[in-house]
Amino acid sequence: MPQSEFELIDRYFRRCGAQRADVRVGVGDDAALLECPPGMVLAAAVDTLVEGVHFPRGCRADSIGHRALAVNLSDLAAMGARPAWALLALTLPAAEERWLSEFTAGFAALARVHEVALVGGDTTQGPLTVTVTLMGPVPAGAALLRSGASVGDALFVSGTPGDAAVGLALEQGRLEGLGQAEYLRERFLFPTPRVALGQQLRPYASGCIDVSDGLLADALKLARASGCGLEIDATRLPLSAPLRALGTERARAFALTGGDDYELCFTVPPQQLARLHAQLPPQQWGYTRIGSMRAEPGARVMGEAGELPLPTGGYDHFAQA
Amino acid sequence: MPQSEFELIDRYFRRCGAQRADVRVGVGDDAALLECPPGMVLAAAVDTLVEGVHFPRGCRADSIGHRALAVNLSDLAAMGARPAWALLALTLPAAEERWLSEFTAGFAALARVHEVALVGGDTTQGPLTVTVTLMGPVPAGAALLRSGASVGDALFVSGTPGDAAVGLALEQGRLEGLGQAEYLRERFLFPTPRVALGQQLRPYASGCIDVSDGLLADALKLARASGCGLEIDATRLPLSAPLRALGTERARAFALTGGDDYELCFTVPPQQLARLHAQLPPQQWGYTRIGSMRAEPGARVMGEAGELPLPTGGYDHFAQA
Repeated sequence: MPQSEFELIDRYFRRCGAQRADVRVGVGDDAALLECPPGMVLAAAVDTLVEGVHFPRGCRADSIGHRALAVNLSDLAAMGARPAWALLALTLPAAEERWLSEFTAGFAALARVHEVALVGGDTTQGPLTVTVTLMGPVPAGAALLRSGASVGDALFVSGTPGDAAVGLALEQGRLEGLGQAEYLRERFLFPTPRVALGQQLRPYASGCIDVSDGLLADALKLARASGCGLEIDATRLPLSAPLRALGTERARAFALTGGDDYELCFTVPPQQLARLHAQLPPQQWGYTRIGSMRAEPGARVMGEAGELPLPTGGYDHFAQA
Repeated sequence: MPQSEFELIDRYFRRCGAQRADVRVGVGDDAALLECPPGMVLAAAVDTLVEGVHFPRGCRADSIGHRALAVNLSDLAAMGARPAWALLALTLPAAEERWLSEFTAGFAALARVHEVALVGGDTTQGPLTVTVTLMGPVPAGAALLRSGASVGDALFVSGTPGDAAVGLALEQGRLEGLGQAEYLRERFLFPTPRVALGQQLRPYASGCIDVSDGLLADALKLARASGCGLEIDATRLPLSAPLRALGTERARAFALTGGDDYELCFTVPPQQLARLHAQLPPQQWGYTRIGSMRAEPGARVMGEAGELPLPTGGYDHFAQA
């Protein structure tokens, strides 16, 4: 058991994640000192995970470490930025060495994959809460924004949204008897932020957002920021085989409103579609066209026999029932 | 009462603090986009305040907003950096409009003083916890580090350490009957980070740390990072008049171990002292020489009649008794 916060920081956080040459000063001073490459702007995002809100009580510590970084990697991916430096603010009821070791392992493994260095942080005592700040460069003028979509643009999503929400339901015992439960649980516990796809999309996409609160809710945020509406063709939704086993209607509801996917939802102008498909083959990069942007505000979801009622849901803290 | 997290963010955080021309994208996208000036490195720090740990339950919301930014301003000041951009991760039990309005007012007032823009954040539901990430440029190679002090350097502190700890004791009813209680409470509730002093010290100081855990504990961290020890002359400690009213011994103990001061503790080589005093007159800039760095590791505190026993204390999360 570490003697103090300072030993604890030394032990677990001093050499966590990738080692980067552009870190002049990392963990251990009053602030980190980082070299921003010339010609780039800095993308910076912060996200908090709270026990009992963003993950179940007693959740695996390596999953919490992975997800705390993944949700921020997903934010930077949605900007087309290259992640580089993370700050970790960790509030813990007690400094349990085993928990810290597993948490750090989950965080560090994902950090190394994406060449992210942990450059600083703060450990405090209190209810389990993890806040990660992630920074990284993106070429000036090339970032993907929520506000860039236009009427007529094609609407895409990466991966198979809905899996993570079903995985959480399985994890919490709210669903049972599903095949490939382990795969679905993993989609919640260890989501895959689309960091490479986000950067590759810069020349083609007009708008982009990451799917964290539910595909429909997040696509609507993109549409609103761009001053337009959207139509989703439910028959095109990329549903995983285990999700389809729930039946079409439930599977679609999970895909549209599930949350915790950390996929990218993006728009591409019609004149860019051929280049997009040629340069980033959809099967290889794992994305699917699901609809289009349209002038009328709001969202419309079309099924086999016409318009479907909008599913409710999408995660919103403090929303009133 | 706001309908949702998104309206709440819009209402309170979209135009909070200074407006800066180097913010390409602020609150409202997946990440902020910031322009780093050429020739500068980026200083970045994060600090968390937890209710019941870093401030008493029921503490004034404007003080929490002020302190959440101040503790980070103090970190950047200790690096000699110019603060520029903040991210705010706010975890709240409920979205109470009055609390949010006061919190934001406290945060924004201090942000405007230091020309800091709030560029992004995350609001989540859970136990009251505030995490601020602060970033800002410092000329490459000019930052103040903890590791730069040498044996023989003079040791300084800004302000009158100990006041904030007494203020907290008054706030919590652990102390009573002191004069100037309002002044002391204010030193805890609304600390003054030494942002201008930190930047001005860059040409003179060899090492610097901010005093958050207690002067002695933080001076020792600076000494350890620099591979030396230190001696403090207790008779030189800058004690405020209300602190002196506690009696010399208690006043010195508060000054050495109190915590929450957010003053700067810094070292200056002997050959720089004349320039320091000429360019930054101590009375005008509010700092005091309190001792020297020495070769023997650890700390020694000298009183009128020789060495004093080391006071215990200095805030350390997870420290074992």
